[in-house]
Formats: sequence, structure tokens, C-alpha cells
Amino acid sequence: MAERIYSYQHLLHFTQNVFKQIGCSEEHAATAAKVLLSADLRGVDSHGVARLTGYVRLWEAKRVNAKPDIRIVHETPSTAVVDGDSGLGLVVAPYAMQVAIDKAKNVGTGWVSVEGSNHFGIAGYHGMMALEHDMIGIAMTNASPLVAPTFSSEKLLGTNPICVAIPAGKEFPFVADLATTTAANGKLEILQRKNLDTPLGWVQDANGQPTTNAHALKSGGALLPLGGDREHGSHKGYALGAMVDIFCGVLSGANYGPWVPPFPAYVPMPQSMPGKGIGHFFGAMRVDAFRPASEFKENMDNWLHRFRSAKPIEGEEKVLVPGDPEREMEQSRMEHGIPLLEPVAEDLQQLAAKLGISFELQ
Amino acid sequence: MAERIYSYQHLLHFTQNVFKQIGCSEEHAATAAKVLLSADLRGVDSHGVARLTGYVRLWEAKRVNAKPDIRIVHETPSTAVVDGDSGLGLVVAPYAMQVAIDKAKNVGTGWVSVEGSNHFGIAGYHGMMALEHDMIGIAMTNASPLVAPTFSSEKLLGTNPICVAIPAGKEFPFVADLATTTAANGKLEILQRKNLDTPLGWVQDANGQPTTNAHALKSGGALLPLGGDREHGSHKGYALGAMVDIFCGVLSGANYGPWVPPFPAYVPMPQSMPGKGIGHFFGAMRVDAFRPASEFKENMDNWLHRFRSAKPIEGEEKVLVPGDPEREMEQSRMEHGIPLLEPVAEDLQQLAAKLGISFELQ
Repeated sequence: MAERIYSYQHLLHFTQNVFKQIGCSEEHAATAAKVLLSADLRGVDSHGVARLTGYVRLWEAKRVNAKPDIRIVHETPSTAVVDGDSGLGLVVAPYAMQVAIDKAKNVGTGWVSVEGSNHFGIAGYHGMMALEHDMIGIAMTNASPLVAPTFSSEKLLGTNPICVAIPAGKEFPFVADLATTTAANGKLEILQRKNLDTPLGWVQDANGQPTTNAHALKSGGALLPLGGDREHGSHKGYALGAMVDIFCGVLSGANYGPWVPPFPAYVPMPQSMPGKGIGHFFGAMRVDAFRPASEFKENMDNWLHRFRSAKPIEGEEKVLVPGDPEREMEQSRMEHGIPLLEPVAEDLQQLAAKLGISFELQ
Repeated sequence: MAERIYSYQHLLHFTQNVFKQIGCSEEHAATAAKVLLSADLRGVDSHGVARLTGYVRLWEAKRVNAKPDIRIVHETPSTAVVDGDSGLGLVVAPYAMQVAIDKAKNVGTGWVSVEGSNHFGIAGYHGMMALEHDMIGIAMTNASPLVAPTFSSEKLLGTNPICVAIPAGKEFPFVADLATTTAANGKLEILQRKNLDTPLGWVQDANGQPTTNAHALKSGGALLPLGGDREHGSHKGYALGAMVDIFCGVLSGANYGPWVPPFPAYVPMPQSMPGKGIGHFFGAMRVDAFRPASEFKENMDNWLHRFRSAKPIEGEEKVLVPGDPEREMEQSRMEHGIPLLEPVAEDLQQLAAKLGISFELQ
């Protein structure tokens, strides 16, 4: 499919303008744009500007509040619950992660559960906020139900990602950012567009049987938890996705399980929702709350070097550490620009026209 | 293979006597026996009394200190590092988890990384200690390298389990306890004993190629991270196992990666070990540090009920919540006794003879 290349600055500026047009403050628009674009930079194309129109539609449907009063509603020295007041998750999440970081400064660690939020972009952005403070960062979110627990024919969980970002000394840091499913929904969408089959273990059909049909979700099928089937440990992926759901939804007072609101504004909201909006969970741990930061970093560098220099299997170039491909992509796209599929670029142009701002097709 | 049935009390009493015979205090022996037997009760037969002789051999090889001075070596209001002084992990881990619980009482959460320990039995026991305090419990440990990262032909990680235990109201609690590999080593050992093949995705051979040979580990092969291969998300299982290794080893000052000491006493210790013993990591979060416990439990009951009553796929009886099979097993074995394979029972009898105590074959 044809692509067009845009500079990071061009897309950042445009995205910021879009958020200002729907009523976000200058500061919120800047934050939201930076968070959204971090997905494009890191190569997670499904979670970046391709979703910008989707965010605007949520605002049009009055499911997103452009002027939220984001605030702490409960706290202890090491914990807080933040109410996002239906704001953009792109803005609510960095606020909440900052609360976690501030608490970690005071008592060693900080843990924040969030209610009343919306989609927050990539978990990686928020977890990585901890790195510059010599802290380990953790970020999770629940999401609308696309995933069937092991043995279930019903979809009860989202793709519920987990980010763990760990600082280092001279080596590049460790940044894991993973959906708790075999394959993220974005990868499935690529196969759908190309009309290709999935590998076995990614999806099941409406009866819960294994299938390779990439379109199975549209006819009652479901994504599968990491592991794919019971024999390959899907009960573990299910347990991890469930943990994310409970930390984000049940601990905060947000919705959880089958009641998490959908991203597409045309999908009706679930009935009898038990909580407020979507939930997130953030953690920050000062490494020097455990041992001197210099010692930690020296050992972390040793860990990273050992793994990065491991002997690869034949046919593979090298062993990667989580976050390596995304960091390399970010360097490349910052320098050479971000490619957008033509339909995405056209979608942004239409959005610009609707909002009365400009988006030049390059 | 023939089995013999023993009562829980019989095995508990015997195990306690074994630990006393090698020099543990009355209190440590009682704790160690209770932790070890919790594996047999919950059906994790690979981690229970079948390993008792292995623990004694570690003591004989002077790798386990029967009279450890377990202590906090660094702390903040929400964190601590505990030095296990080469004690049994079965004793060090409950000590460290109690520190996490005490810190959570004070500041909402507690997080403890442990150095200088040994194998701690099942992670589930330690995580579940939090439940009676209306806390969420987290327990992890690193272990000697049996697992190859994605694209690696070298074994650099252990099976590195994660336990997350979450309290509820009227419903049974959520207790996930999972190795970050496709299959736990115990399951592989069962296939080895029966000379059966593994499914694809469990192990690779010495060249890093997929194999179904259950004996592949003995000839340079490796267990695979949850996911099995790149296409099925093994980089996610690798990332989770790596996170466990870093939280347990690098954060505490224990060994990590390929340097984690082995469980079998006949296996030589790694060269140039960067830390002390094996590492663990524990967390405790008071649910009322986030929202009133009664509200949390009401919503958690709703979550658990919804998942337990989900529509199962054809041919499956019901959808399970993590911990359900183990809890049912515990109830059954407490009532009807614990079956031991004949070689395990005979091994315990020989151990008894060597230590000058009795173990009646039933």
C-alpha cells in the first residue's frame, strides 16, 4: 500500500492543533500530541495518528471531556487513585504517572490506579517517564473486551498491555511493552487489510474453535491470550490480562472485564457499567530505594550486555533486549520521517478540513 | 506409575523433622515444612516433598545455611532489601513477604527484594500471605538458567514465576501463579519419565531449532518463554521472565541471568558470580490504600462471578479463574491425602534412614 512520509514535527504540530480545536488547553494539547506521536515514532503505527480521528469522534460523542478536572480522589503515602474526569487518556495518564513518581521520591515507590479515563496511547510512553528519575516505571491499562479467557467462548478482556521500563547506566534501558495476547490487535488489522490468514493461536471463532481467519472477530470470534491454547500456556496470558484488568479497573473504580467502554464511538456503550470510564495502573520504584543507584546501574549494564551479546540461533542476527527495536525505529523516524499509509493521510486531511485547520498532503 | 497416599499431617511432621535434623530452629523447620507442603497440597508436585532430598543435598554441599541471620540491609518507608544469609528460601521468603506486609500497613504498599536466598517452593504460598490482610500479594523468584530468550541459542533465564494473589469478598480469591515459560519444568519432567514427546513450542534443541524431544535440555537445548516462538509472542514471555530476573536479582544484589546458582547440588556453581545466592521479589498492596475495602470486594466478587459464569467453549465444563484448580486440589488432598510416586516415597525413606529418623512407607 502506498505511503507518504511526514516529519515528526509536522505531525506533532498538526495533532496539537487538532486537540486545541476540540477545546483542549494549550498544555493538554501539547501533552496529548507528544504521547500520541510517541507511538508513531516507536513503530506502533496502530496506536498513533492513525487513531486521531477516533479520539475526535469520541469527543463528538461526548465520551471524552476536553476540559477535564483531573484529580487525586484518595491517597496514602505510596498510593493514589486519580479520577480522569473522562479526559483524554493521553493527558490523564502522564498526570497519574507523575503522581506515582512524586510519591516514589518521598517514600521509595508510588502506585496509582486511575478511573474515568480513556485510551492512553502506548503504555511505553508512560512507563518510560520514570527512567530519567532513575526509577523503574510500570504502566498498564485495561481496554474493551476483544479477548476470550481460556475455555471461554465469550470475550471478557481487552488486550491489556503491560509496560516495564528499567533504567541502566551506559547501556540503553530495558523497555518491555506488551499486550497480554498472542498478537496485538494492530497486527491482526494488518492481516485483515491484506486479506491474509493468521497463524494458529492468534484467534478463535464464535464457537471457541481455533481458526486462521483474520476476520473472525467480526463474526463473534475473539483474540487469544498469550500462549494461544491451554497446551501452550494460554491460561498464563489470561491470568496476566486479568491481573491488568483488576489493577486498572477494580482497584480504581473504573469499569472492568466486559464492561470497559469501546474505542470506536459508533459502538454502543455496555449496559449496567459498574464503574467510571477506562482504568489504568502506574508504578514508580526508585532504584536507590533498594541499593545505591550506581551499583544497580553497573549490574544492569552487565545484565544488558550479557543478553545483547548472547549467541543467536542460526539465521538470526542478534538477541534483542525488550525495547531495542522500538528505540532503533524512533531514531530512524526522528531523522527520516514517519511513513503514513495513504488512507491514514487522507483521513487526517479530511479531519483537518472538518476542523478548519490545514494538513498538507506531502 | 504406582503411588502411595500420605496424610498432609504425616508429610508435614516428617518434613519438619528433616529440617530440624539438618540444624534448623524449631520455628524455621515448621515454616519451611509448611511452605514446602503447600506445593503438594496445591498439586504442584514438582515443588513439594519430591524436592526435600534436594534441599538436604544443598545443605550437605554447604550451599544452604541452616541457621541464617536473615535481616533487612536497606530500607525506605515502602521498600526493603533483605539478605537471606544463604538460608532456605522456604524460610527467607515468608520473612521478606512479612516485611512487605508490614510496610503496606504503614504506607499503603511494601516492596521487598531479596539477595542471598535459595529456592522458595511455590510463589503462590508467599503471595497468598497477603490475602488475610486484605492486601494484594505479589511474589517472584529468579532461578537457574534453563530458558533461551527469543532468538538465543544460549540459556540465560530461569522459569522465573510470578504470583499475584487478589482478595475478594464472598467469592474465592484470584491466585495466579505461573512460570514465564510455555510449560513449567515439572511438566517436562513428567514427559521425560514417560518417554513422551512435548508439543511444539515447549523446547528448542542445542541449535535453537524447534523440537518435540522432551530430553532436549540434557543435550544443550532449552525451555522456551511463554509464547513459544516469535510469531506466537515468545518475546513477551522472554520480557516477563527478564523483568522477574531483574526485580529479583539486579535490584537486590543477588545473582541474575546465567549466574543464578543451580538447585541440584551436583551441578557446579557458575563462574564469576556477580551477586549473592538467588533473588526474590515481593509486593503487598492494601486494597484500602486505593478505595474502601468493602467497595473493592464487592466489585471483585462481581468480576469473579462474571468470569466463573462465562459461557464455556464446547467440550469444556467451565471457565476457571486463576487459582481455582489449585484450591480444589488443596481441599481434596487435605481430606483424602497426598499421593506420592513410589520413587519419591522410597527416596524419602532413604533420606529418613540417613538422618536417623523414621518415614513409614504407607
